[in-house]
Amino acid sequence: METFINLAHGDGGELTHRLIRDVFVAAFGKKDAALFDAASLHIPTGNVAVTTDSFVIKPIFFPGGSIGKLAVAGTINDLAVSGAKPLYLTCGFVIEEGFPIADLKKIVIDMANEAKKTGVTIVAGDTKVVEKGSADGVYINTTGIGVYEHNKGCSLAFEEGDAIIISGTIGDHGIAVLTARGDLGITAPTLSDCASLNGMIDSVLQQCGTVRIMRDPTRGGLATTLVEIAEDFQITMTINERSLPIKQEVHGACDILGFDPLYLANEGKAIFIVADSQKEKVIDILKSCPEGKDATIIGSITSKGKGQLLLETPIGSKRMLTRLSGTMFPRIC
Amino acid sequence: METFINLAHGDGGELTHRLIRDVFVAAFGKKDAALFDAASLHIPTGNVAVTTDSFVIKPIFFPGGSIGKLAVAGTINDLAVSGAKPLYLTCGFVIEEGFPIADLKKIVIDMANEAKKTGVTIVAGDTKVVEKGSADGVYINTTGIGVYEHNKGCSLAFEEGDAIIISGTIGDHGIAVLTARGDLGITAPTLSDCASLNGMIDSVLQQCGTVRIMRDPTRGGLATTLVEIAEDFQITMTINERSLPIKQEVHGACDILGFDPLYLANEGKAIFIVADSQKEKVIDILKSCPEGKDATIIGSITSKGKGQLLLETPIGSKRMLTRLSGTMFPRIC
Repeated sequence: METFINLAHGDGGELTHRLIRDVFVAAFGKKDAALFDAASLHIPTGNVAVTTDSFVIKPIFFPGGSIGKLAVAGTINDLAVSGAKPLYLTCGFVIEEGFPIADLKKIVIDMANEAKKTGVTIVAGDTKVVEKGSADGVYINTTGIGVYEHNKGCSLAFEEGDAIIISGTIGDHGIAVLTARGDLGITAPTLSDCASLNGMIDSVLQQCGTVRIMRDPTRGGLATTLVEIAEDFQITMTINERSLPIKQEVHGACDILGFDPLYLANEGKAIFIVADSQKEKVIDILKSCPEGKDATIIGSITSKGKGQLLLETPIGSKRMLTRLSGTMFPRIC
Repeated sequence: METFINLAHGDGGELTHRLIRDVFVAAFGKKDAALFDAASLHIPTGNVAVTTDSFVIKPIFFPGGSIGKLAVAGTINDLAVSGAKPLYLTCGFVIEEGFPIADLKKIVIDMANEAKKTGVTIVAGDTKVVEKGSADGVYINTTGIGVYEHNKGCSLAFEEGDAIIISGTIGDHGIAVLTARGDLGITAPTLSDCASLNGMIDSVLQQCGTVRIMRDPTRGGLATTLVEIAEDFQITMTINERSLPIKQEVHGACDILGFDPLYLANEGKAIFIVADSQKEKVIDILKSCPEGKDATIIGSITSKGKGQLLLETPIGSKRMLTRLSGTMFPRIC
């Protein structure tokens, strides 16, 4: 087999056929979609959930993961936080001419491993190749299909006093990826938190039935995600700066680099907003899972009717947080 | 609003929010996915079909279509030829920094129009922005979800004597796009055939129940697609060179440029293999649809047990056709 991707790998002919057979089918197994233009899926009774995400992360291999692991975990997490059980994934590759096939194999194996670990099947794929200089290595789209199971998920029935929980430390992914690029002058002080959260989320839903809402604070970070929730549902949320779980090394890197961990991407964390009466139980469940061992209550819904996010500082003052604005962090996912 | 895409349009913050609102939601309407991480879909009883495709076509606007129209029609066609009724689409954009927002709007409106025309709903999307030089304008992934309706579709029960039908002229898309690039020294002699075929295919299935198989001969062209079918199902197919429907202007351009229309991409054509007894009926149904007015019987299954495609030339000799090999046509879809 060739060492590098060339344009003929994307033209639908003999080399495309061999690439699919030797790289994709070798890792994912042969599915209907290898023979037909669409895969046939069995979907259990229930409403179907679908989500799509393109991954353009740079570098493609980073401390704690790769674009392949991320492309599977990221889409699984979008399904899981919406209250759906992830079942199937499709993947679409745009590959730059000259990309090493050995790297493509590593990426595809990471995808296959993450899919296997989470019980999700990769059912359809597509490969396009563009000329050298028309992409940066490889971009991957994954689309996830899941099913909403009966009586579980997000009620969206917010009440004053509802607790805001984050499942672990914030900013790990952002710091790991930004420093891994090598142009910030410090070596990566931590690993990305890149992980599939469907197992942990399933534990919460199995034992609690519904929560108010779940979200994964990826691009834009914790602050941007909470602002979106606050605005979409017209609730005021107040989070306490002192309670935010942040690794010492992430704190240190942020101080040096001038980043705010509230706006750094996470790829293995979920926000849970739950009834005040449920919060301790949810924390216990989260802490029983490896991905949730640092779960923390970081604030609460303090009023309804106005969509805003407030940060209570260590000296007791409050300031309003907005969405990430400007472009600190391109290609973080 | 800004005139050009900048990196902040992809970072998940304020500009991303505005881009989604002013471009995507403006064209596609507001769906669940605008509020949540996954869209909730209603799927009628039946097995679910899913397919994914990335579009990297160059140029993004070409005679007869655009990357937007193609991204919708191409995925709808993959569902339709698999025997599924297309219902939902997701779309993932990778956009180059500096891309004109006016062009993005045109593309998105083309997508919305094609989706509307075909009765398909766009339910989820994602936008990433990469630095100038890290993509060529815009790449779009669409993933399609459909449903296999009871008792219709592809039987795959091939018999000797089965007829091979193509729904119209071949090579139009390939010639339109390759000449539109302007570097071949001739102006585009024809329009791309880019079109959604689900209506035409539905007419055939409604009136015929099942066919043997349907495929859309896109990348790699008619010959590559037929070779794939021949090999996958171990059947020998013979097609007659004289019967191939080819527009005069496509023939002329191929002569000048040295292209073989059998290997040129089509984006609005379908292959039907049907029982010999069904062939006239299928031709009549196809000819009653605008997309099928040039439908032609081009050959038949001449034996079983060996997977090969034979071309009967005008002088009566036969030669074996293989998959497209080498890279004639990068970025044709």
